[in-house]
Amino acid sequence: MALSIVTTHTITADFSLEAVGEHREVHGLAPIGEAQKNTLTFVGDIEKYGEALETALQVGAIVFVPAGQAYSTPSAGTLILAANPRAAFAQASARYFTPPVLAGVAETARVHPTAFIDPSASVGEFTVIRENAVVGAGSEIRDHVVIGRNVTIGDSALIKSHAVIGEEGFGIEKDSAGNNFRIPHLGSVKIGNHVEVGCFTTVCSGTIAPTTIGDYSKIDDHVHISHNCRLERNVIVTACAEVSGSVILEDDVWLGPNSSIIQGVTLGRGALLGIGAVALKSIDEGEVRVGNPARQLPSRSAQ
Amino acid sequence: MALSIVTTHTITADFSLEAVGEHREVHGLAPIGEAQKNTLTFVGDIEKYGEALETALQVGAIVFVPAGQAYSTPSAGTLILAANPRAAFAQASARYFTPPVLAGVAETARVHPTAFIDPSASVGEFTVIRENAVVGAGSEIRDHVVIGRNVTIGDSALIKSHAVIGEEGFGIEKDSAGNNFRIPHLGSVKIGNHVEVGCFTTVCSGTIAPTTIGDYSKIDDHVHISHNCRLERNVIVTACAEVSGSVILEDDVWLGPNSSIIQGVTLGRGALLGIGAVALKSIDEGEVRVGNPARQLPSRSAQ
Amino acid sequence: MALSIVTTHTITADFSLEAVGEHREVHGLAPIGEAQKNTLTFVGDIEKYGEALETALQVGAIVFVPAGQAYSTPSAGTLILAANPRAAFAQASARYFTPPVLAGVAETARVHPTAFIDPSASVGEFTVIRENAVVGAGSEIRDHVVIGRNVTIGDSALIKSHAVIGEEGFGIEKDSAGNNFRIPHLGSVKIGNHVEVGCFTTVCSGTIAPTTIGDYSKIDDHVHISHNCRLERNVIVTACAEVSGSVILEDDVWLGPNSSIIQGVTLGRGALLGIGAVALKSIDEGEVRVGNPARQLPSRSAQ
Repeated sequence: MALSIVTTHTITADFSLEAVGEHREVHGLAPIGEAQKNTLTFVGDIEKYGEALETALQVGAIVFVPAGQAYSTPSAGTLILAANPRAAFAQASARYFTPPVLAGVAETARVHPTAFIDPSASVGEFTVIRENAVVGAGSEIRDHVVIGRNVTIGDSALIKSHAVIGEEGFGIEKDSAGNNFRIPHLGSVKIGNHVEVGCFTTVCSGTIAPTTIGDYSKIDDHVHISHNCRLERNVIVTACAEVSGSVILEDDVWLGPNSSIIQGVTLGRGALLGIGAVALKSIDEGEVRVGNPARQLPSRSAQ
Repeated sequence: MALSIVTTHTITADFSLEAVGEHREVHGLAPIGEAQKNTLTFVGDIEKYGEALETALQVGAIVFVPAGQAYSTPSAGTLILAANPRAAFAQASARYFTPPVLAGVAETARVHPTAFIDPSASVGEFTVIRENAVVGAGSEIRDHVVIGRNVTIGDSALIKSHAVIGEEGFGIEKDSAGNNFRIPHLGSVKIGNHVEVGCFTTVCSGTIAPTTIGDYSKIDDHVHISHNCRLERNVIVTACAEVSGSVILEDDVWLGPNSSIIQGVTLGRGALLGIGAVALKSIDEGEVRVGNPARQLPSRSAQ
Repeated sequence: MALSIVTTHTITADFSLEAVGEHREVHGLAPIGEAQKNTLTFVGDIEKYGEALETALQVGAIVFVPAGQAYSTPSAGTLILAANPRAAFAQASARYFTPPVLAGVAETARVHPTAFIDPSASVGEFTVIRENAVVGAGSEIRDHVVIGRNVTIGDSALIKSHAVIGEEGFGIEKDSAGNNFRIPHLGSVKIGNHVEVGCFTTVCSGTIAPTTIGDYSKIDDHVHISHNCRLERNVIVTACAEVSGSVILEDDVWLGPNSSIIQGVTLGRGALLGIGAVALKSIDEGEVRVGNPARQLPSRSAQ
């Protein structure tokens, strides 16, 4: 790891930025609320996050802040001034802290001859890739992953260890004797670019059309995305969430940990479902729902 | 895939049935509420599902409907008349859409010499099968599965990738110093015929007697069946449900996604636990419980 | 299995104890509430568990009970008198029922040359152990486990099949275009002695400092321990619990099945969170919280 040579001095030199406070080594990255000593973080809105900035500086963090205003030298921590602090943080993250994907397929992986793995992609140990699956450029498929037949994964995706993509959804009917039997699923899964799928996460095959995950959507560990779901762009699904069949999550939806969504509903653009919430109905654009069953937060004016 | 040659004409010829509407190709199967163009589905009760039937026909679905009554020719979609639509659907599903289990054990699987795998069963990549385990005729054990010692799996079962069957339940006691220690589990697991166990599903070993799963029971992905549970016949457990120790689920019980059941209770025949519900007590035969804690649905007469 | 030769006579002889009732074979171990015929169990407090003791004896269990008082000969079942019944039970469990860890690394495991595996530890089939990881003396790492770089696992730990320890937490930020991107996690994971981690359980890498699990903590299957958490000593986490980022669980905390905890809060020593409960706030030492959102149990005096 070359981390010990990344200092605030390196950053300001590489990106032509100005620092306020002592130069120091950077040991990692964190959101502003979790910043620790020598972690790099950012604040885009000084008024809104002023208190968090103070706390972060006190523990010795390095914080990108908006250029174009005066800052006093902090007693601890270091400020780096950037026109767009968030973008600067993203660039520094990509430049110094993101290990390159090592292209190639592990010797122990089982890749069907009809599958296409981009030569710049990486496939980990004991991973199984089935007929006609496609893995795009720069994507990283880790260990013990199962990618079913006809699954398509875009570019720059990250599929963490032990994900299963493209096995059947859970479609059960009764036969003439009243016994359960399963309905085949032929639709497979289509995953966009810059998507992340967590450990122990299932993305199930659609019944006839594919289940789809849009670009930049990020799915945490232990998540279940059922058959025929459509996750649009930039959706965030945190750990242990359960998304039932044919659910639509529009752009920028955020699902809380261990939340559940009943089949067939739609969460509008930017909707947010809280931790442990159980959505029994669709949620309109930008709305927030919490609890079981999920309902509106009590409004502030009503308190 | 031989799918392109399955048409409604093939079906009516093979099963001696009559069609109303144009013949068309069948591209997949779906429940009536999720039917799409060229999907095969069924309606058993025309009065109850009349509206769903209309919708399905409008999108171009092929629908098994009860014979013995008159149907006008639909402007889109196709009807196939059957004495028992559900049974016809089941037969067509089995005949045209269920890929045969390819018998044999993958080269990368690790099967203990004392285990018995029926020659007609299939064992996938990187699967581990331990001492004295038994896998019945026509059963399909997929990739990365772990089957513990003394586990018995019946005939025609499907164990999806990354299931773990027969590791210990979670029995923790305190030692004399107050530290946690685990109690051994020796009862193993006994799984019936036509059972399905989903990806990332655990069925834990019983303490002394086996944990059991009855014939035709279907368990979705991410489910936890704890030690000493007894699932009887034709039970349905949807994704992410948590079933604590010594729970009994009688015939035809249905568990909603991400529901939880406290240890030691019984859900009577045909009982239903809703999505995200938390059952703290037993539920009588045929009863429905929803919410956290689980309670009766408000009755219609009381509204 | 040498189980058939373990009888109450063996136990009384080996530990110099006295029995009341007929000698019989021991077929397994159970908590008092789940005792069956020929299972070994214990009762520490006769007054509190008198009824459970009666039930256990009626079904033919063998029960360690406190020495120093008179017992009538039971019509069924057998009593064994011990100064400390719980400790006697623990000793018998360790002596007769805990299979020894077979030291060594499975041929199919992939262990990085820089990792250190204690020669007395066991590593199972298809397990992947990355750069600089450490596995302590007598620890058992089962099949299909992934242990990330720099992870440390103490002595006498049990990591069940399909656990993933040390992949990144879920730290997502927006780039300058509003797209999600992930923050690297460099802190890894540090696991103590006598810890258990269940099947399909994730313990995520900390952002900069390690996520930590203290000695004797026991974690069931399907649990998610997020980045930067600190589980102290002797904590119990039951199945399907979700523990969000930077949560602290102090000594002897107990988490119910499928419970969820919002990020950044602390559960004080001995706190208990019920099945399916959703903790949105910290919980004080020894307090019990249930429901969604988690709140106090109705007090008995108020009923």
